[in-house]
Amino acid sequence: MSFTVDERLLDHSMMICDLELSRLIVKNDKENPWFLLVPRKSRAREIIDLSSEEQTLLMEEISLVSEFLKEYYRPYKINIGALGNVVPQLHIHIIARYEGDRAWPNPIWNTEAGSHFDQTELENIKSNFIEFYE
Amino acid sequence: MSFTVDERLLDHSMMICDLELSRLIVKNDKENPWFLLVPRKSRAREIIDLSSEEQTLLMEEISLVSEFLKEYYRPYKINIGALGNVVPQLHIHIIARYEGDRAWPNPIWNTEAGSHFDQTELENIKSNFIEFYE
Repeated sequence: MSFTVDERLLDHSMMICDLELSRLIVKNDKENPWFLLVPRKSRAREIIDLSSEEQTLLMEEISLVSEFLKEYYRPYKINIGALGNVVPQLHIHIIARYEGDRAWPNPIWNTEAGSHFDQTELENIKSNFIEFYE
Repeated sequence: MSFTVDERLLDHSMMICDLELSRLIVKNDKENPWFLLVPRKSRAREIIDLSSEEQTLLMEEISLVSEFLKEYYRPYKINIGALGNVVPQLHIHIIARYEGDRAWPNPIWNTEAGSHFDQTELENIKSNFIEFYE
């Protein structure tokens, strides 16, 4: 079965690259840099739908993206979540949070970013990540 | 340094047991059975504060608790989150979600359970988990 990402996860987002397990996407949120990992297993809804090896890979990729977020965006706190109540395709949010950000200290899901990256900034995120990863 | 769990995580909660890495706690929420994994590393705030081996263990424990939740509570969706904006000690939420529950389809943090387990039900959760685990 060919892999596709749910359209709703691609809205206001840019693909960065494919990691070993997951496709990495950045949402266009300049206030709270926000990444999504989407394991390339179209039928997975829950983390426990992945094999044990895939779960370990997923944790490694969560860790990699968290380290990138920490290095480049100096968050006060990293929020990580696998919810999927609206979009059932398994995806993991990795979000930079700051004291006083638009939802602080509450969860930031379902809030709108007040400022956005331009295309050059998005391309820079992509090249910075790829350099960090390689 | 001796390990203690932040008092705020213990509020309306019961300890179930210590797993290899984490202390497992159940919140007293009869509507949305809700577990917390607290790695016994007092200084950890982020998943990336754990070693790579501890991260793998944490994923195994998330998976174990998710399987227990699935088996006993038949959730429509499992929500997993590491936020820590209010309580900085690293802890991972594993929550049973149902269509039409009190927050559906939004995140359920910061909402109050409308019904609670009694002491016998809490003890049963504990013994069921320990049987499932062993």
